[in-house]
Amino acid sequence: MHAASPQQAAQAGSSDAPASQTPRDLRRVDIHPDHWYPLAWSREVKAGRAHGVSFAGDPIVIVRTESGRVFALEDRCAHRQVPLHAGVVDGESIRCCYHGWTYDCSGRCTDVPYLGRERLPNGVRAYPCREAAGLVFVFPGDPLLADTAVFPELASASDKAYKTRRFGREVQCHYTFMHENLMDMNHQFLHRRQMGRMRARSLGRRRGEDWVEVDYTFAREEGRQPIGEALVFGQKRGKDGSDDPEGAHKDVMTIRTAYPYQTLRIHTKDGTMVMDLWIVYVPLDREQRTNRTFGLLSIRRPKFGALLDAAWPLLVWFTERIFKEDRWIVEREQEAHDRQGADHNQEVFPVINDLRALLTERGAPAGMRPAHGFDTRRVHLIQPVTEAPAP
Amino acid sequence: MHAASPQQAAQAGSSDAPASQTPRDLRRVDIHPDHWYPLAWSREVKAGRAHGVSFAGDPIVIVRTESGRVFALEDRCAHRQVPLHAGVVDGESIRCCYHGWTYDCSGRCTDVPYLGRERLPNGVRAYPCREAAGLVFVFPGDPLLADTAVFPELASASDKAYKTRRFGREVQCHYTFMHENLMDMNHQFLHRRQMGRMRARSLGRRRGEDWVEVDYTFAREEGRQPIGEALVFGQKRGKDGSDDPEGAHKDVMTIRTAYPYQTLRIHTKDGTMVMDLWIVYVPLDREQRTNRTFGLLSIRRPKFGALLDAAWPLLVWFTERIFKEDRWIVEREQEAHDRQGADHNQEVFPVINDLRALLTERGAPAGMRPAHGFDTRRVHLIQPVTEAPAP
Amino acid sequence: MHAASPQQAAQAGSSDAPASQTPRDLRRVDIHPDHWYPLAWSREVKAGRAHGVSFAGDPIVIVRTESGRVFALEDRCAHRQVPLHAGVVDGESIRCCYHGWTYDCSGRCTDVPYLGRERLPNGVRAYPCREAAGLVFVFPGDPLLADTAVFPELASASDKAYKTRRFGREVQCHYTFMHENLMDMNHQFLHRRQMGRMRARSLGRRRGEDWVEVDYTFAREEGRQPIGEALVFGQKRGKDGSDDPEGAHKDVMTIRTAYPYQTLRIHTKDGTMVMDLWIVYVPLDREQRTNRTFGLLSIRRPKFGALLDAAWPLLVWFTERIFKEDRWIVEREQEAHDRQGADHNQEVFPVINDLRALLTERGAPAGMRPAHGFDTRRVHLIQPVTEAPAP
Repeated sequence: MHAASPQQAAQAGSSDAPASQTPRDLRRVDIHPDHWYPLAWSREVKAGRAHGVSFAGDPIVIVRTESGRVFALEDRCAHRQVPLHAGVVDGESIRCCYHGWTYDCSGRCTDVPYLGRERLPNGVRAYPCREAAGLVFVFPGDPLLADTAVFPELASASDKAYKTRRFGREVQCHYTFMHENLMDMNHQFLHRRQMGRMRARSLGRRRGEDWVEVDYTFAREEGRQPIGEALVFGQKRGKDGSDDPEGAHKDVMTIRTAYPYQTLRIHTKDGTMVMDLWIVYVPLDREQRTNRTFGLLSIRRPKFGALLDAAWPLLVWFTERIFKEDRWIVEREQEAHDRQGADHNQEVFPVINDLRALLTERGAPAGMRPAHGFDTRRVHLIQPVTEAPAP
Repeated sequence: MHAASPQQAAQAGSSDAPASQTPRDLRRVDIHPDHWYPLAWSREVKAGRAHGVSFAGDPIVIVRTESGRVFALEDRCAHRQVPLHAGVVDGESIRCCYHGWTYDCSGRCTDVPYLGRERLPNGVRAYPCREAAGLVFVFPGDPLLADTAVFPELASASDKAYKTRRFGREVQCHYTFMHENLMDMNHQFLHRRQMGRMRARSLGRRRGEDWVEVDYTFAREEGRQPIGEALVFGQKRGKDGSDDPEGAHKDVMTIRTAYPYQTLRIHTKDGTMVMDLWIVYVPLDREQRTNRTFGLLSIRRPKFGALLDAAWPLLVWFTERIFKEDRWIVEREQEAHDRQGADHNQEVFPVINDLRALLTERGAPAGMRPAHGFDTRRVHLIQPVTEAPAP
Repeated sequence: MHAASPQQAAQAGSSDAPASQTPRDLRRVDIHPDHWYPLAWSREVKAGRAHGVSFAGDPIVIVRTESGRVFALEDRCAHRQVPLHAGVVDGESIRCCYHGWTYDCSGRCTDVPYLGRERLPNGVRAYPCREAAGLVFVFPGDPLLADTAVFPELASASDKAYKTRRFGREVQCHYTFMHENLMDMNHQFLHRRQMGRMRARSLGRRRGEDWVEVDYTFAREEGRQPIGEALVFGQKRGKDGSDDPEGAHKDVMTIRTAYPYQTLRIHTKDGTMVMDLWIVYVPLDREQRTNRTFGLLSIRRPKFGALLDAAWPLLVWFTERIFKEDRWIVEREQEAHDRQGADHNQEVFPVINDLRALLTERGAPAGMRPAHGFDTRRVHLIQPVTEAPAP
C-alpha cells in the first residue's frame, strides 16, 4: 500500500543484508507497554467515580472507590463489551451500567444479578495501578513485570524548593516526534516570535543502554530576552547590569530521554538546578498516531519566592504559547508521514540519530500487538460460559 | 485484517469441524432482503414529490404521483447515476433533474428529450411498494417473492381501542443489537434512573422456525413506580391501595422476534392486551452499521379515554428517555465491535442465545450481496445502448 | 475491492480480448501532468509571502520574493517534511519555519544554520512556474518538457474589447465530470429555474488528436429570456421587437476541450465573438476526487460599455447560481461513482463519448504515479547525508 522509503529501497537493493536488519519505520514502532505510564491526573478521578482513558487503543477504566482507593480495569464489560466507565461505583466495586454485572479491583466478576453465584463468568483484565505526584500511573504491559519495572523519579514535584506546573494536551502525532522535537534545540527558530533569535550550541552527547542525553548552551543572536523566558531560565545580566549574551553560556541545559520518559534540566554554573521538566507522551489510539502529553515543569523558587507566584500566570502563558507552536509543527510532521506513507526525514544532527535508534530499539518489537482489534492475551483470561443457567 | 474471536479461535483448533459450521460473526450477518420493510412514514412522501431513502446501501426513491399513488425505484438515473429524488414528478412519472430522462412506475425509461422514442435506453429497477398504517413498505429482495411474502400484522395501529404512537430514529448500530436489547429485560438496570430498580423474571421461552419469544414478569426492588411507567404499564396497587409489587407479577410481558420484526406485548391476568409495540430496524448503509427504527406503540385506552390523551405528552417524554438510553448503549456495543473487529459478547442468557441463532439463520446467506459497490442483479436489467443516435 | 462494471464484466467474458484493450474506468484516469496548470490566482501570492497549494496530492509552495519574482517548490522541507509555506521569505529564498533550512528558487538548500556550508544536504524539487492573465501557472510534470509544452491562449482576458470575470471554486469530483458537464448542453434541464426551458440543438462535432468540439444553437421552449442570460448571451428580439426564439438560432455556441483546457465561445451570425470562457479543472488530491476550477469569462463590451459595468453584479449573481447547480450535480455523480465503485454511466450522446475517449487517451498512463504516497522521482533528487557533522 505504501511506497518504500529511500532507506528501504536502498536496503532492498543489497540482497545480502539480513532481513532482521531492515530498518523499521520509526513512526510504526509501538511504545513498549512494559513501563509505568500516567493515564490521568489524580484530580480527574473523583471518589466514587469511574474515569475512562486509553492506552494505545486499549480502553481502560480507572475507578476511585468510595474509600478513595484507585484501581484500573479493562474498560469493557465481559458480557457485552460496553464501557465500564459508564457504570456505577458500588462500595469497592464497579457495576456495569447495562445489566449490572459487577467487578472488584482484581477484575473478578462478583455478581450477575440474574445468575446464581456458583455460575459467575470470568471477569476482565486488571492493570497494576498507583498514584504519584498527582498522576495516576498504570502498567499496561505484562503485569508480572510491574513490581520490578523502574518507577520514574518525580522528585522536584514534591520538593518545596520548586514550584511545579502540571500541563499537557492531546497531540495528533506519534510519540516519537515529541521526543525529537524537544531534544533538537536547533528548532529554536520555530519559537523566534516568542523567544527572539537564539542559537543553541551542542556541548556533547552521551548514550547508555536505555537513554540518550545532550547538553546545550544558548547564545542570543538578536533582540532582548523576553520576560517569559527570563522567568523560566533566569535573567541574564553582564557585570555592568546590561544584557549579557555570553553570560547565558554559563547555564547548561541537559535533555535526556530515559526510555520512555524525557527530562529537560537547566543547571547554573554553580550546579544549582533552576528548572526541571519531566514529560511523557502516552499513545492513545492503537496506531499510536495521537498521544496525550503529561508534563511536570518545576521551577526553583528564588530567594523571594512570592515573586515567582506573582509571575506565574505570565509563565503559564509563555509556556502555553511555546507548547502550541511545538504541537502545531509535530502535527504537520505526522501529516507528512501519513501522506508519504513512510518516514522520509533526512536527519543530519547526530544526537537525534542516536535518539531515533534508541526509540526503535526500546520500542515494542514488531508484531507484539495486532495492528487492529483484539489483544490476544485476553483470550486466556475469559472463558466462555458453557453451562447456561436455566431461565 | 481482524483478529479471530475466541469462538473462531476454538473452532479453528478442531480441524475436523466442517467449514460450513464455522460460526458467523452475528454483526456481519446482513438482514434478509426478502421481506417487506418500511422505508418511510407516509407523511414524509408528499403528493407530487420524490423522497430519497436507503436500504442497506441501496438508494431508493419513493415517488408519490400527482394522483397520490406511491411507487419505488432505484434512486439513480440510468444515464449518469445521479439521484432521481432530486428530479421532478411529472404526472405519474419522475423526470431526472439533470438531462430530463423520464421513468414510469415500472422503472421503464419513457422519454429522453434529445433522443427519438425508438431509441430509448433501458430504465431502472423498480421495487414492490405498498402503504399500511402510515408507513410506506418496500420489498427490497427478489420481486417475484413479494406477493407471497408475509406482510406484517399491524392490527392495533388501526384498532380504535388503542391509541398509537409512531416513533423512531436513526441508530448507529447493526440491527441485531436492537433485537437483543429489547428481548433481554435484564437490562432494566440501564433504565434505573427512569424506572427505579426492577427485577425481570423470565417465565419461559419458545422457539419456532422463524421466531423466538419469551415471557417476563417484573418485581420492583426499590423505589416507587414512576408516573410515566404507570401510564404505559398500568398502575399497580395492593388490596389496601398501597403499591403492590406482587401485583405486578400478574401482568405478563411477551417479547417476540418474528423475523425480521419484533413485538412487545403486555397482557393483564384477565388476558387483556394493554400494550402492543411493533418495531423493526431497517439497515441504512451497505455494511449495515446503522439502522432506522420504525415503531408503532399502541396503548389500550382506559374506560375514560381522555385521561390517556391528557397524559400522552408525559408518555412521549418517558418513552423518548428510555429510547435514548437504549440507543446510547447499543451504539457503544457497535463501537466495541468496530474496535475489537469481532463479536466478543459472552452471552449467558438462554433466550438471547436462541435469538442470536435465529438472527444468524434467517439472515442473508454470506455472499448474497457484495460487500461494496454494485448489485450485480442490476446488470441484467440495463443493457448498454449500442446504437448511438446521430447528433 | 470493487465490483466490476458491466463493460468490464462483458470484457472479461470474451477471453480472446487482449488485456491492453480493457476499458479503463474514466474516473480513475489521472490528469496528465505534462501541461501548464494554474494553481493560484496572482493576487493570492503576496510579495514576501509563501502560499501553499496542491496538484493531485503533491504539495507545492508558491513563493513571491521581496523583489516580486514567483517560484514554486515542493512544499516539504527536505529535513523533516514540514510545509515550507509556513516558512519565512528571506530575500529571494525561503527559510523553513522549524529549523531554518533555506532554499533558493531552484530548490537548492543554501543554508542550515547549525551545519557548515560544505556539508549542506540536497534540497527539494522545483517546478517551472510562470504568471499570465492573473494566474500563477506551474508545470507539475517532467520539467524538461515545460518549455516545449503549449502554453494556453488567454487572449480575451487581455483584450480591452472584453470585460473578464475571474471565478472558480473547489468542487468535490473528478475533473472529467466537469468536462462532460459543460460539453453536454442537453443538461439545460438542470438550469430550468435559472434559464427557463431551452432546447439545445447539436449542429455537429469535430475531433482532432488532442481536442473535441461541438456546436450548438438554442431554442426557447417556454417562458421568457431571463435578464441574466440576456447579459451573457445578448438579448434576442424579433423584427417587431418581441422575443424571437428563432433569432437565437443565429448565435452559435462552440464548446471545445483542448486537453486539458476547455473553452466555450459564442459567435453571432456576423462572426463576432460575444462570449469567451476559458476554464480548467485542477485535481487537488492524489485520488483526483476533488478539483479546483479556474475560469476566465470574457464578455464583449457593447457599444456603450458602461452598461456592461452597471449590469456586472447581476451577471455575477446569475453565473454563480448556474455554477452552483453544476457543482451540485457533478458532486452527486462523484458520489454515485464512489458508492458503485465503478463507472456505470450509460452515455448516449456521441460527442460525450468522443470526449470520454479523448480524456482517457490523453490522461496519464495507468501506473504513472503510485496510488498512494511517495513520488518515486523524488528519490533521485535527494541523497541522504551520509557524513554527519560533529556536534
